[in-house]
Amino acid sequence: MEISNKKILITGGLGFIGSNLTRRLAGCGNSVTVVDSLIPEYGGNLRNLHDLRDEIVVNLSDVRDPFSIKELIKGQDYLFNLAGQTSHLDSMNDPFTDLDINAKAQLSILEAGRKNNPNIRIVFASTRQVYGKPQHLPVNEKHPLNPVDVNGINKIAGEQYHLLYNQVYGIRSSVLRLTNTYGPRMRIKDARQTFLGIWIRNLIEKKPIQVFGDGKQRRDYNYVDDVVDALIIAATRNETAGKIYNLGAPRPISLQETAQIMCEGLKGATYELVPFPKERKAIDVGDFISDYSIFQSSFGWNPKVSFTDGIKTSFDYFRKELQHYT
Amino acid sequence: MEISNKKILITGGLGFIGSNLTRRLAGCGNSVTVVDSLIPEYGGNLRNLHDLRDEIVVNLSDVRDPFSIKELIKGQDYLFNLAGQTSHLDSMNDPFTDLDINAKAQLSILEAGRKNNPNIRIVFASTRQVYGKPQHLPVNEKHPLNPVDVNGINKIAGEQYHLLYNQVYGIRSSVLRLTNTYGPRMRIKDARQTFLGIWIRNLIEKKPIQVFGDGKQRRDYNYVDDVVDALIIAATRNETAGKIYNLGAPRPISLQETAQIMCEGLKGATYELVPFPKERKAIDVGDFISDYSIFQSSFGWNPKVSFTDGIKTSFDYFRKELQHYT
Repeated sequence: MEISNKKILITGGLGFIGSNLTRRLAGCGNSVTVVDSLIPEYGGNLRNLHDLRDEIVVNLSDVRDPFSIKELIKGQDYLFNLAGQTSHLDSMNDPFTDLDINAKAQLSILEAGRKNNPNIRIVFASTRQVYGKPQHLPVNEKHPLNPVDVNGINKIAGEQYHLLYNQVYGIRSSVLRLTNTYGPRMRIKDARQTFLGIWIRNLIEKKPIQVFGDGKQRRDYNYVDDVVDALIIAATRNETAGKIYNLGAPRPISLQETAQIMCEGLKGATYELVPFPKERKAIDVGDFISDYSIFQSSFGWNPKVSFTDGIKTSFDYFRKELQHYT
Repeated sequence: MEISNKKILITGGLGFIGSNLTRRLAGCGNSVTVVDSLIPEYGGNLRNLHDLRDEIVVNLSDVRDPFSIKELIKGQDYLFNLAGQTSHLDSMNDPFTDLDINAKAQLSILEAGRKNNPNIRIVFASTRQVYGKPQHLPVNEKHPLNPVDVNGINKIAGEQYHLLYNQVYGIRSSVLRLTNTYGPRMRIKDARQTFLGIWIRNLIEKKPIQVFGDGKQRRDYNYVDDVVDALIIAATRNETAGKIYNLGAPRPISLQETAQIMCEGLKGATYELVPFPKERKAIDVGDFISDYSIFQSSFGWNPKVSFTDGIKTSFDYFRKELQHYT
């Protein structure tokens, strides 16, 4: 373990990636505080850390509450800044909430750091959504940013605040742009976090899953443990401060193939191709393949878990835990 | 006049550029409503339009007030969206106000347009500040965006919201990235709008002006009438919708030469080179020269007023009007 005997704050810590990171960091003498608002439409779920309640501190508060963060940030060695509004569609229907969480609250967190803990080391979780519809594939970090939804715009602001506070105030901050992350503890109630969530739920509940469009669009998926590795690398390598890195996967997979892999070995599981709902088409980005070669070559980060294996582990988890996630 | 017999809304209409635009558009059968909050630290000044009070509608309200804009936007043909927080330094000292005005209020204006007037034609005034410190000169529209202050970050969000609402909802919006604009009716109380303002005031008041650093940094200046031309072009050409254009000037001028030109012919006028104040150095961008060849070649826009002539006109204006601007 590369982080031990440290004080660590994780926003969105009861959420999907946050809870997996917390599980990794708890122990080794680390003292972990998770902050989460448990907003029903988001990823936070007490079940994600229910077995660790004696080992960590759970602070229920919202990142939009500046008073809470001001106090919690004091004395921390690391901040993994993962809380966010993640639904592209919700960001169009309620753009102000997305702005408040993904932009304004980030500024507020950084101001808290500047005033109360300028030596903190921060990693901010951003998204490939900032690129919008790719102009070329794969998409590296220099690809122009043309977001197709409010979420992408506000995440850019969130990224830039982190780089700015690094540059101007010396608060060491790194940004990772995550692609489609999946695995145990993700939200499966609906497609708000990723469509893979609702697909897993539907398949477990023996419902058909729906592929929008012709199913040829390609995506790259990261298993959550690989993303946790990347977050820890970003936090512990000096040279990541003030920089932005893509994560990604070695093999892009079409939506149709994704559905096929997920249906394999599940008795009676089927998928269907359906036309794109209009409001989703308007903000769809088409093929997306991330070029993560800079992070890979700089730090030896290579996703270890294949999509087939990761999906199997996810099914195993959610089959047992279904009642806590639906 | 390319716009006649139209209904026109101008946010920041009592400000520097807004009032000059209003003066151009009033008449020709245009019905102009200006919205301004008259915040003392910003550019709004009743004097700017005092002689036109019978010909236009002045609505005192803040763009952060969604109720006001919702109603005012109804039935308008054009919106020139010029209200903004412009001070780079203020954006660092009070980042949330900058965010609320330059990002959140823009979203709110666009939402108002979407709901109450989706056929409106919008031009949004952005800034070269979005580029940050140039990686190469001159800076064209594809130059990476690495803003060096909170203001630049929030203006990017403001731009992107406009392009997004154009793309997703068909609200025709264009973005102009302005460089250093100057001329009659600018703010000269201090350097919040442009350092040229405080230089003019100090020279008129027979105080020395201060050049930060070695004076070799180059800037490109646009006289306000040329910018008004550009705003009207952007509003009236179909092909500008959904696009971003730089403005700029044919000849970059160093800060020292700027000071020399401004002191010329003024008895006893002097400038002094002084070290950069620390908080300004942290967010300074060095040389900045805009490449405006796309807007120039597409629409035949060429700045007509030389810096020497424009500064002379500005001095003439402010000498007469000094009491209303200090």
